[in-house]
Amino acid sequence: MAKSFTTREENYSQWYNDIVKKADLAENSAVRGCMVIKPYGYAIWEKMQRALDDMFKETGHVNAYFPIFIPKSFLSREASHVEGFAKECAVVTHYRLINDPEGNGVVVDPEAKLEEELIVRPTSETIIWDTYKNWIQSYRDLPILCNQWANVVRWEMRTRLFLRTAEFLWQEGHTAHATREEAVEETEKMLRVYADFAEKFMAMPVIKGVKTPNERFAGAEDTYCIEALMQDGKALQAGTSHFLGQNFAKAFDVKFLNKENQQEYVWATSWGVSTRLIGALIMSHSDDNGLVLPPKLAPIQVVIIPIYKTDEQRAAITEKVNDLVAKLKIKNISVKYDDDDSKRSGWKFNEYELKGVPVRIAIGPRDLENNQVEIARRDTFEKITASFNDLENTIEKLLVDIQENIYNRALKFREENIRKVDNWDEFISILDEKAGFVSAHWDGTPETEEKIKELSKATIRCIPFDNPEEEGKCVLTGKPSKQRVLFARAY
Amino acid sequence: MAKSFTTREENYSQWYNDIVKKADLAENSAVRGCMVIKPYGYAIWEKMQRALDDMFKETGHVNAYFPIFIPKSFLSREASHVEGFAKECAVVTHYRLINDPEGNGVVVDPEAKLEEELIVRPTSETIIWDTYKNWIQSYRDLPILCNQWANVVRWEMRTRLFLRTAEFLWQEGHTAHATREEAVEETEKMLRVYADFAEKFMAMPVIKGVKTPNERFAGAEDTYCIEALMQDGKALQAGTSHFLGQNFAKAFDVKFLNKENQQEYVWATSWGVSTRLIGALIMSHSDDNGLVLPPKLAPIQVVIIPIYKTDEQRAAITEKVNDLVAKLKIKNISVKYDDDDSKRSGWKFNEYELKGVPVRIAIGPRDLENNQVEIARRDTFEKITASFNDLENTIEKLLVDIQENIYNRALKFREENIRKVDNWDEFISILDEKAGFVSAHWDGTPETEEKIKELSKATIRCIPFDNPEEEGKCVLTGKPSKQRVLFARAY
Repeated sequence: MAKSFTTREENYSQWYNDIVKKADLAENSAVRGCMVIKPYGYAIWEKMQRALDDMFKETGHVNAYFPIFIPKSFLSREASHVEGFAKECAVVTHYRLINDPEGNGVVVDPEAKLEEELIVRPTSETIIWDTYKNWIQSYRDLPILCNQWANVVRWEMRTRLFLRTAEFLWQEGHTAHATREEAVEETEKMLRVYADFAEKFMAMPVIKGVKTPNERFAGAEDTYCIEALMQDGKALQAGTSHFLGQNFAKAFDVKFLNKENQQEYVWATSWGVSTRLIGALIMSHSDDNGLVLPPKLAPIQVVIIPIYKTDEQRAAITEKVNDLVAKLKIKNISVKYDDDDSKRSGWKFNEYELKGVPVRIAIGPRDLENNQVEIARRDTFEKITASFNDLENTIEKLLVDIQENIYNRALKFREENIRKVDNWDEFISILDEKAGFVSAHWDGTPETEEKIKELSKATIRCIPFDNPEEEGKCVLTGKPSKQRVLFARAY
Repeated sequence: MAKSFTTREENYSQWYNDIVKKADLAENSAVRGCMVIKPYGYAIWEKMQRALDDMFKETGHVNAYFPIFIPKSFLSREASHVEGFAKECAVVTHYRLINDPEGNGVVVDPEAKLEEELIVRPTSETIIWDTYKNWIQSYRDLPILCNQWANVVRWEMRTRLFLRTAEFLWQEGHTAHATREEAVEETEKMLRVYADFAEKFMAMPVIKGVKTPNERFAGAEDTYCIEALMQDGKALQAGTSHFLGQNFAKAFDVKFLNKENQQEYVWATSWGVSTRLIGALIMSHSDDNGLVLPPKLAPIQVVIIPIYKTDEQRAAITEKVNDLVAKLKIKNISVKYDDDDSKRSGWKFNEYELKGVPVRIAIGPRDLENNQVEIARRDTFEKITASFNDLENTIEKLLVDIQENIYNRALKFREENIRKVDNWDEFISILDEKAGFVSAHWDGTPETEEKIKELSKATIRCIPFDNPEEEGKCVLTGKPSKQRVLFARAY
C-alpha cells in the first residue's frame, strides 16, 4: 500500500504531525499557537465531552459558566498561583479600536485603556473563588460541585497541535467542601473518574499517582495525576486533580459557619482534562497507516463501501445496505454508507484507514449472491467474511473486541516499558535507548529531582498510589530512599 | 402567598432582574459586563444547546472550533465589518506579566508587547474565512457547513444579564457555497430552524422577516431575523441568519474552480443565536410568582414533594415514589424527588414555583390510602387529583399540554399586540400606551427610518417574509409606500 506519510520509525514527531493533518483533525491558524480544530477532530472531542460530562453528572456535579476574563489583581492573591501563570498570560489592556488618524486601517484607541488589565483565563480558580464567596455562608451551602466547559489561554512559546497550544479547550471542575477529608475524597474520586474514562473510552492504560511538590499545580497542596505512555516511550500527563487545601479560600476570604457555629475557611479541589487528550489518543494507538480510534470515541464506527460496476449492482447493494444501516442505528452504532460515485473504492479504503474507522465493510455483487460481506478490522487489518444474517450483532461484538484489543495492546506495551533501574548509568542508557517509565529510587529532595531533570531530561511523573515501600538508594545521590518513583521523559 | 419580589406591573425591569437572581439563573461577576451563569441557568442553556445541535446536525452541519483571537488586521479587511465591531473590542496587547519593580504586585511586562494586537472574537467571520481559504479549491470542496459553539466578547457599555453582556455564549454557523442560490437557500433554511426551535422548544412565537439595510449585520448583503414580543410589549431579536454574498470571500481572497473550470468567489452565510435566548425565554412566559419554563427546556420537569409527619409515613411515600420516578425516567422525563428533611414543604412549593418547574406533585399519607396524588401545573396554578394508576402517562400528557398552553398564551398575546397604524400621532400614542408591534407604512428610505427611531425610539424590527403588498403612505413623511413593515421598541 502506498504510504502517504512518514512512519513512526523514520520520525515519530513528523508521523504525529502527518496524522493530525491527513486525518483532518486540526491545523495551525493565522494566530500564533492557536489551532483550528477541524470537524473530524472536533467530533472526537464531542464524543469525549459527552462521556466525561455524563460521568461528572453521575458523580453529582453540575455545569456552570464563569467569565473568560480575570482581573489582574485576582491572579496576585494566591502567591504561588501568580508565580505559575504570570509568565504566559494574554493581557487585555484596551476596549476599543479607532480609525488610524494617519490612515493606516484601525489602531487601538489610547482613550479606551482599561483601569485594570484583564487576563484571558489560563485557569479559573481565582474568578470562581471570588464568586463562591457570595454563594457560601454556612455548611448547608456545601459542598458546591461545579464544572465548566471552556477555552483557556496560556501563552506557550513552543506549541504542538493538541499537545501544547496557546488556546485549548478543556473542562475544569471546582468544588468547595466543609472538611479537608471530604475535599481529599473528591480529589481522589475525580482522578478515578479520569482513569476510568482513559481506560474504558480511550482504551489508554494510565498510572494513577501523586506529583512531587516540584510538579504540583500552582496553588495546590497536592496534585494527583494520570500518566500514560506514548508509543515512542515518552510519558504524557493526561489529567490532573488538585487538592487545594484552604489556599484559595484564604486568598478570597471564603469562610463558612460550621456545624459548631464557628467561622472556618472552605476546602477546595480543582480538576481538569483538555483537548490534549486527543493528542494522547493519537499517540497511544495509531500506526503507520494512519489513525486508529477506539470504537467508543470514533465519530464513524462502521463504514460500508459498495463495490460495483453497473447501476443495477449498485442499486441492489444499496437496498441491502439500507436495511443493515437501520439495524445498526437501532443499536446506536454510528455508520456511514459511502456510495459517492466520484471516488474509487481503493481511494475510500485508504481514506477510512487513515481516519481510523474501526470497522470497514465491503459489499460486491458476489457477496450479495452469497448473502455475505467482507469485514476488515482497522486495529489488526484482519479480514473476515460474515453472513448478512445477524450481521448487526456480529458487528456489535466486533466493536467490543476492537475496543478491548487496542486497550490490551497498549497495556502490554506499557507493562513492557516500565523498567526497574538501580544505578545512574543504566538510568541514562535506558532513557536513551528504550525510553519508557523508569522505576527508580530517589532521595526525596527537590534538589535531586531538579538535578536528575537537568542531567537526563527525565522528570518524576508520579509516585504511584499503590506504591510498595522498599528500602533503597537514590539512583543519583546514593542517599537512602523508602520507595521507587516513576521517571520518564515526557510531553 | 408572600411575594418576595417585584411584580411586572410595578417595575418590569426590576421584575426581570429579580427572577434572574432569585431563580438562581445568573449573576454579575467582578468583571464589568461579564456574567456568571449559575448551574440552574446553565442547565437551561444545555437543553437549548442539545436541541439546536441536533437540529443543525439533522440539516447536515458539523461542529468545529476556531481561535478565540482575531488579528487586528483581519477585522479591517471587510470595510463595513470593522465599522460595526471596532467600537466594542477587547484588545490583547501583551503576553506576559512580571513582578512590579516597585513592589506593587504584578504588572504588564513592557517587553512582552505583541507585534500585532489580537481582538477577542466578537464574531468569527474573518478568522474562519481566512481558514476556509485553505480548505477550498474546487466546487467539489463545497458546500462547507460548519458550526461553532463558543464564547464571544463585545464591549457593551450598558449590560443586562443574558440580554446584553460583554461576554456571551453562542453558536455561529459559517457556510460556504458554490452559488448565490444555494447560499440564499441556506440562509433561509437556518432561519426556519431557529423559528422552529423558538416555537417548538421555547414555546415562543416569532415573526420571520428581513432586516432593513440599516439594521443589517456588519458585512451582510441581507440579514434575516426572528422577532419575538416580550410581555412588556417590547420586541426582542431572537436569532439572525445572514446572507453574506461574496463579501468575505473577496476580503480573504477565497476562490474556487467552478464546474465550468472558471475561478469564482465563494458565497457565504453565517447565523447565530446566543444566551440572550434565556432572557427571551424568561420574559415570554414568567409571571409574578417567578419563572415559567416550557417543559421541553426545563432542567427539572417534575418535582415530587412528600408531605409527612412520621418516619413511617415518609418511608411509605418514598417507596411509592421510587417506583414512579423509575417509570418517569424510562420516558425520559426529568424528575426530582425532594425529600430534604431540613426544609418545610411550604418552602419547597415556593421554591419550585420560583424556579418554574412545570409540574409539582405532592403526596401525603391520605393520598397513599386513596392511591392518588395532587398535581399542580406551574403555568395555570390549576390543581388536579390523579390516580397512581397510569400516572406516568398522565404526567407525560400534562407536559405536552403545558408546552402547548404556554405557546398559545404567548401567541395570543403577540396577536393582540400587533396593531395597524396609519398616522403619526397614533403611532406614538400606541407605542407609549400599549407598545407591541406596530404595522405601518414606511417610505423605504434609511433617512425616514432614522428619523422615526429618533422621534419614537422604535426601530423597524423586520419586513415579514409573508408580507402582503399594499399601497399606502409613510406614517411619518406621507410619501408613497408599497407595504407595511413592523416597528417596535426593542431590547
